[in-house]
Amino acid sequence: MTEIATASAVSAASAVSPPTEHVVATYEFETSLPLEHAAEVLAGEQSTGTFVRVARESDDVRARFAAQVESLEELPLTGASPLPGTVGDPAKRRRARLTLRFPLSNFGPSLPNLQAAVAGNLFEIKELAAIKLVDLDLPDAFGERYAGPAFGVAGTRRLISRPTGAMIGTIVKPSIGLSPEELAEVVGELAAAGIDFIKDDELQGNGPSAPLEARVKAVMPVLERHADRTGVKPMYAFNITDDLDRLEHNHDLVVEAGGTCVMACINLIGLAGVEFLRRRSAVPIHGHRAMFGAISRSEQLGFSFRAWQKLARLAGVDHLHTNGISNKFYESDAQVLDSIEAVREPLLGQVPTVPVLSSGQWAGLAHATYAATGTTDLLVLAGGGIHGHPGGAAEGVASMREAWASAERGESVEQALAASSAMRRAVEVFGPPRA
Amino acid sequence: MTEIATASAVSAASAVSPPTEHVVATYEFETSLPLEHAAEVLAGEQSTGTFVRVARESDDVRARFAAQVESLEELPLTGASPLPGTVGDPAKRRRARLTLRFPLSNFGPSLPNLQAAVAGNLFEIKELAAIKLVDLDLPDAFGERYAGPAFGVAGTRRLISRPTGAMIGTIVKPSIGLSPEELAEVVGELAAAGIDFIKDDELQGNGPSAPLEARVKAVMPVLERHADRTGVKPMYAFNITDDLDRLEHNHDLVVEAGGTCVMACINLIGLAGVEFLRRRSAVPIHGHRAMFGAISRSEQLGFSFRAWQKLARLAGVDHLHTNGISNKFYESDAQVLDSIEAVREPLLGQVPTVPVLSSGQWAGLAHATYAATGTTDLLVLAGGGIHGHPGGAAEGVASMREAWASAERGESVEQALAASSAMRRAVEVFGPPRA
Repeated sequence: MTEIATASAVSAASAVSPPTEHVVATYEFETSLPLEHAAEVLAGEQSTGTFVRVARESDDVRARFAAQVESLEELPLTGASPLPGTVGDPAKRRRARLTLRFPLSNFGPSLPNLQAAVAGNLFEIKELAAIKLVDLDLPDAFGERYAGPAFGVAGTRRLISRPTGAMIGTIVKPSIGLSPEELAEVVGELAAAGIDFIKDDELQGNGPSAPLEARVKAVMPVLERHADRTGVKPMYAFNITDDLDRLEHNHDLVVEAGGTCVMACINLIGLAGVEFLRRRSAVPIHGHRAMFGAISRSEQLGFSFRAWQKLARLAGVDHLHTNGISNKFYESDAQVLDSIEAVREPLLGQVPTVPVLSSGQWAGLAHATYAATGTTDLLVLAGGGIHGHPGGAAEGVASMREAWASAERGESVEQALAASSAMRRAVEVFGPPRA
Repeated sequence: MTEIATASAVSAASAVSPPTEHVVATYEFETSLPLEHAAEVLAGEQSTGTFVRVARESDDVRARFAAQVESLEELPLTGASPLPGTVGDPAKRRRARLTLRFPLSNFGPSLPNLQAAVAGNLFEIKELAAIKLVDLDLPDAFGERYAGPAFGVAGTRRLISRPTGAMIGTIVKPSIGLSPEELAEVVGELAAAGIDFIKDDELQGNGPSAPLEARVKAVMPVLERHADRTGVKPMYAFNITDDLDRLEHNHDLVVEAGGTCVMACINLIGLAGVEFLRRRSAVPIHGHRAMFGAISRSEQLGFSFRAWQKLARLAGVDHLHTNGISNKFYESDAQVLDSIEAVREPLLGQVPTVPVLSSGQWAGLAHATYAATGTTDLLVLAGGGIHGHPGGAAEGVASMREAWASAERGESVEQALAASSAMRRAVEVFGPPRA
């Protein structure tokens, strides 16, 4: 009966707008209130509510515009402390998984306005001792408004002339401090070593020590000469992150010099900034996740990677950093593997984004990563693992390539080590490989 | 001696760039490592470091580009649990306040690239059990590149014809669900009630249920007629938050209809999106902080309001939400008052941004707020406190105006209540006033 009543309320409103689709947001939260009550507080704050009922807030308005609780399931507490400012008896704290249904017509298929509803003020609600957006289910209208990646896996493979196998890349090291001449030298070595992809560090923006223009002028002639000789142009992701009015200029500098990729720090130009760039970019956008930890590392607050990556992909990133197993940061292998899987799941008919594995990556992680992910549609970045290889960058790249090819052939790590001296030398420095 | 050595290293580099200024970032962190060691890990990750020392990472590069520890002071633990993924012996966990000095020449006065250095990957460092950016000290170069607010306190007062006293505003309620006709009615009542300022809810974007254009067409004729009669045009902050390519169009819709303010959700269009809007806006930008809780509510992670608000002001917001005392969200009065103070502190010679007090605000909070802040250069928004006043919006506005005027005259709450029937009726519904 409730459903029928809701349907007729919507139909009565159809002079204004057609029956609407919904966004379904999934949260994990903790509260000392009864779970159902806390869920209603959240739904109310994020749609029709204020702290007192006001004039014109009719039952009809509530029926048509309110977020609806779709499911609510209790979970065990994790042991983490409650967020500051939480009200209620701490001894009564419980944890639950909640799905809320938001009428799309409240905000339309706009990524910024979607976030106001599903991830706005709710993080400040004092009735909630924890509140994390863990998943989002978006209707087709988002796929219609947002074009998503223009290149993705296939476009990137085409540009780097690497139709199959893991795509092997690296970060310029040291992160900052190289002169243009030194940078050109590093890039020349890496290109000669057969690398597919090189990127600026996220710390390398457009500062006076190493302006983007100087980097482009240093790097691109090296890559063009290499391409003339070999027919293959490694992709260099220039970090063009900057104020939005400079993004287009930065992008044009890269593309006019023959560059085939731009890198943007998603959270630093904003998801909206990525979408702005997507509409203007002639080359793949390498999406760096710097600052992502600020919204995700707490288990009590913010966004899961799974929810956030959908927004980033809709905004148009062709490559998206997922971290890699055995990384130097805080994430567990299970979290990383879930992130890679999330990025590889279909999203509203869009071109697939390439997961980017980085941080502490080296040849000895190839077999374990391939075993867990079952794919080579990955961009695997080794910084120290290539630059710090005892045989130099060429052997560093060879160690990565040989390890991934062996993994893809279904060999064991031991077989790979027996066949690859570059892998054996990597093991001397980086320790035992992961099985 | 160290200082002199550093100075000559900089001077040797001056063929490339002049001696650089610095950004000073202050953090609170927790770790199970020795504090000095953890501080070096953080400084290294955010400037020259990778997990192994690599070719061309000379001592000279480190001297010129590395972030330097300026001070390190132990603090007591807060009792909050460590962030997930932290390494080390939990029994050895300690907390400290750290200031790091970053050479500006690493990234230049670019807000996005600044954040990569002071607030990028560091939140993911597994050696840190807590990591929060609590303050930022920025060199003049940022004030030269970023114009900051174009209107601020003085410009807003001029537009609303309210040269002195607290600026009294409200949010349209219900937050969503009104037809254009109902919205026009509400706005007419509020204008007649003598309100200074009205804003859309952050949940009211540009969805099909109530498109921005329909709201502008409904609201502006009402305000124009009111202005023709009275000479005073209340400011209506239309929420123009949307994809960036629509922002300018949305802004133009408002301004062409005679509107005097646009509202943007800072975190939803990004700080870079705000700066983009600032360069194009002919009217004050009302900066809403939706989603701010996601980066700030955990005491173990993210940004303090004090650090974040500097970025928002440089990006150009004329009004900035600080929350108010006795609010319905999680923040304590002490936190709110510190936020208001932070927004009122001078910043690189820029026009002062107006702190916006909202959430659970009503007439009974005026005396306590004025006593604590000592200013009326505030925009005080009462949603339920005006719409839910038993005498209607007109008495709601009168209660706010009379309470603030009384506070400013140095009277007690009791004196105000004795003189104002509107305040007395507010007390009947909202409870006792704060002294």
